[in-house]
Amino acid sequence: MNSRHILLMDGPDHKGLIFTVTRVLFEHQQNIIRNDEYVSPSGFFFMRTEFEGNIDPDIVLQALQKALPEGLRLRLKSDRKKDIVLMVTKEHYCLAELLARYAFDELGANIKAVIGNYNTLRPFVEKFNIPFYHVSHEGLSRERHEEELLKILLRYQPEFVVLAKYMRILSPEFVANFPEKIINIHHSFLPAFIGANPYKQAYERGVKIIGATAHFVNNNLDEGPIIAQDVKRVSHRQTAADMATLGRDIEKSVLSEALKLVFADRVFIYRNRTVIL
Amino acid sequence: MNSRHILLMDGPDHKGLIFTVTRVLFEHQQNIIRNDEYVSPSGFFFMRTEFEGNIDPDIVLQALQKALPEGLRLRLKSDRKKDIVLMVTKEHYCLAELLARYAFDELGANIKAVIGNYNTLRPFVEKFNIPFYHVSHEGLSRERHEEELLKILLRYQPEFVVLAKYMRILSPEFVANFPEKIINIHHSFLPAFIGANPYKQAYERGVKIIGATAHFVNNNLDEGPIIAQDVKRVSHRQTAADMATLGRDIEKSVLSEALKLVFADRVFIYRNRTVIL
Amino acid sequence: MNSRHILLMDGPDHKGLIFTVTRVLFEHQQNIIRNDEYVSPSGFFFMRTEFEGNIDPDIVLQALQKALPEGLRLRLKSDRKKDIVLMVTKEHYCLAELLARYAFDELGANIKAVIGNYNTLRPFVEKFNIPFYHVSHEGLSRERHEEELLKILLRYQPEFVVLAKYMRILSPEFVANFPEKIINIHHSFLPAFIGANPYKQAYERGVKIIGATAHFVNNNLDEGPIIAQDVKRVSHRQTAADMATLGRDIEKSVLSEALKLVFADRVFIYRNRTVIL
Amino acid sequence: MNSRHILLMDGPDHKGLIFTVTRVLFEHQQNIIRNDEYVSPSGFFFMRTEFEGNIDPDIVLQALQKALPEGLRLRLKSDRKKDIVLMVTKEHYCLAELLARYAFDELGANIKAVIGNYNTLRPFVEKFNIPFYHVSHEGLSRERHEEELLKILLRYQPEFVVLAKYMRILSPEFVANFPEKIINIHHSFLPAFIGANPYKQAYERGVKIIGATAHFVNNNLDEGPIIAQDVKRVSHRQTAADMATLGRDIEKSVLSEALKLVFADRVFIYRNRTVIL
Repeated sequence: MNSRHILLMDGPDHKGLIFTVTRVLFEHQQNIIRNDEYVSPSGFFFMRTEFEGNIDPDIVLQALQKALPEGLRLRLKSDRKKDIVLMVTKEHYCLAELLARYAFDELGANIKAVIGNYNTLRPFVEKFNIPFYHVSHEGLSRERHEEELLKILLRYQPEFVVLAKYMRILSPEFVANFPEKIINIHHSFLPAFIGANPYKQAYERGVKIIGATAHFVNNNLDEGPIIAQDVKRVSHRQTAADMATLGRDIEKSVLSEALKLVFADRVFIYRNRTVIL
Repeated sequence: MNSRHILLMDGPDHKGLIFTVTRVLFEHQQNIIRNDEYVSPSGFFFMRTEFEGNIDPDIVLQALQKALPEGLRLRLKSDRKKDIVLMVTKEHYCLAELLARYAFDELGANIKAVIGNYNTLRPFVEKFNIPFYHVSHEGLSRERHEEELLKILLRYQPEFVVLAKYMRILSPEFVANFPEKIINIHHSFLPAFIGANPYKQAYERGVKIIGATAHFVNNNLDEGPIIAQDVKRVSHRQTAADMATLGRDIEKSVLSEALKLVFADRVFIYRNRTVIL
Repeated sequence: MNSRHILLMDGPDHKGLIFTVTRVLFEHQQNIIRNDEYVSPSGFFFMRTEFEGNIDPDIVLQALQKALPEGLRLRLKSDRKKDIVLMVTKEHYCLAELLARYAFDELGANIKAVIGNYNTLRPFVEKFNIPFYHVSHEGLSRERHEEELLKILLRYQPEFVVLAKYMRILSPEFVANFPEKIINIHHSFLPAFIGANPYKQAYERGVKIIGATAHFVNNNLDEGPIIAQDVKRVSHRQTAADMATLGRDIEKSVLSEALKLVFADRVFIYRNRTVIL
Repeated sequence: MNSRHILLMDGPDHKGLIFTVTRVLFEHQQNIIRNDEYVSPSGFFFMRTEFEGNIDPDIVLQALQKALPEGLRLRLKSDRKKDIVLMVTKEHYCLAELLARYAFDELGANIKAVIGNYNTLRPFVEKFNIPFYHVSHEGLSRERHEEELLKILLRYQPEFVVLAKYMRILSPEFVANFPEKIINIHHSFLPAFIGANPYKQAYERGVKIIGATAHFVNNNLDEGPIIAQDVKRVSHRQTAADMATLGRDIEKSVLSEALKLVFADRVFIYRNRTVIL
């Protein structure tokens, strides 16, 4: 029986990389379904290859590693769903979108658990038979609170942690546990209006367009690689509150779009940017 | 013979403002074609009224001033074309767009002259039989250079000065000569990437959307009231140079759109924001 | 205690309409919060006035009717939530969006019931404690089936019936029971690709943009007044199935946007078009 | 000295196509700059390969033809500018955009001549020192008129003929002279509002979005492969005339975008769709 695999490859460019990969797959009777590659102006090579065939994928991977120059990173993914954990605070809209997609099997991921630093969203989450953990930050140091979070996360070993409006800053130490694995939705069209209350800032600046940004989380708040962005037009008629409402719609659709790309293994990270193949 | 007028009114809100204006116009047999108003959350009132009738507009204006509470600003505009002067450096694309619209009588303004701090664009401007002034900044202090610019501008008494990619910073003293009359196109989706080389910054940050902003110029560079903005999607495939090319298309269309609004007397300025009626 | 009201007025234009309305409201100590009006090129007048004050609204309405010329339609609305009923078939995405908004009190309407011609969506609806009625069309004539639907609808007396992917055509006789009250989401950027399987048609035509349309339902399928539309870019890489997935996201956000406008009493209908104030 | 080439390849998919091409280029010391390929769901293969090296491109082409299975179409393009001829009627806006881009060497093409069935645009074209031919259709049969057009076109042997608002229908016989070489801008978001006066149709239908479509011309008017489309939002406030003005801005930017893709050899045609790599 044939099964489908995704090969992700990145590293310094060399002559003949596509040639070598396609040769090895050809020799192993694997059929390439889709192949996308990109070479950055600085000479860094990225390739995503979907292929299909009835062979042990590890054998293919070993053959590729042998045939390719050193210094390239190779990752072989099956096309099964990712295991994820969501983190939330009190706002429901991104969570509700993800749960509805999950309920109808459209998310491309299994939501193993939801962690909230408030208990507000428990009833909604439990409608969907997903465990909800309330880990209050009150009375705890950041360090102690993150230890509690970590304990739960490690139990589930998620492939991705999605901050679906988790409104607390995570320490670099915490983030370091999940490199390139935490995804956040930022309530602004980055790099604009960094910090709190961006819709009030947008209103006061009189912008004619507002937006949202989904990005990986690294050590610098809001400065990780951008995965997806979108915008909507506004006018002077929108109050700061109207902009916040509209902004929420953008946030939830941008987060959805970003997760679709990530869960399909289409996103590479390079020098704090994403390459999406 | 009937002629068309535009009444612009702004000031602190009072009960009955629309009532008073419509009553006075009604009593003077003026026919309201279109009326738009807006009250800001802070209680500031804006109204733009297009009306038509065969009466001396000054009589209407006086009657309105008499009937309305103090502290309101009233401006009465005819619907004739505005006189404008363009300022440029070396980049042609916004200039070419405005000249083409002007050549076919679609700009809503008369371009009285173009001033460049380089001579590069003279041949193109002269194709359209518009005077071009080369006022080089080389060897001149900013003060002296701006004096030269001012001399030309004062000769033309433009109602608006359009910076169609004029790449030098204007001093607050210069700007003070043309309050709410200088319009700039900014090569970025403000408030992002302030400063030089925004497309390189956008590339390095890996944004998925780039944009441009047309705004009035006040004393703080790039911080005047925003008139229009637009954006386009980009991906990792676009180099910084590609983004610059695409950005130019956005800049020229955003500047065009902003000028259309300004020349139709649809733009009010309030607390560093625009209200567009 | 002050309460807020919305006056909707439409009819042939006359001199002094705004004047008369604002005078009457002024005389009754009602405070205008927001006033928007529009006169069509053919001379039809529309006005939406939000006002606030502590008086019996019927007294204001009578005073207005007395003061205004005949032939104008006046409607006075409170700002309470509308009662609505949803109709569905098997597709969940629009339904899930509306239920999530309702669950968090953001819909501007009370969902009194959901009617499905299949039973598929019952479990999801019941998570939200809303009655679900399964009215199968199987073995019934269209007439008989619509009688069953009507029985339920008349019990709830909904102010609007929302077809959230209800995939059966309604007869003109049925529609006539709910004039200007049935809202549909159409899986296409109207007027394109009328009929079944629009995403397959879009794929085969090779369009670069797909869209969706929310509209009122009148006797001609898909030809009622358009309330909202939106689009997204596609490329040759999207299959017909990909376009359908993307199209669903557009459909749900367009339907949401349209309902927001309708439930806020901002939509007038005139000559098969909408005027949105 | 290295020079850059573009290989376009399309045909039925076979195992190993990418492998074979990259091997041949590798063996001939050609360096792949960018490679994009696509396989349609129906199993048709498309590849565009930009490469660089100091060898006779014909030798590479022959080697590729020898190594590849039969039935594939191979085209080798240099990256020089295309020779084109524009055809116009009376409307200037698309023409003005293309001439401005050409004047500043940004079009990616040489405009060898402009042909008008009216003489209206001659003065504007001649500002740019481009020959203008007035070929009036008055008093001529379609056949005779097209013979006159053909005479001029054959003299210039253009690689592409751009209909920049040429408002007459071309016969299938005429079109057959330039297969996949005539590009038109359609004043509508196809497939909507086919026929005359689309903005009046759009106004009357009350659409909330209008658009334009650039496409290749085949025998069926407005039904050739779509290259690019774009849209803008409108409201009830726009008259049919306003929509026409806005529509022109969309038309000119969509035509520009389409030509950029075509002149860069990025557009394949397959089953009346385009594949853009």
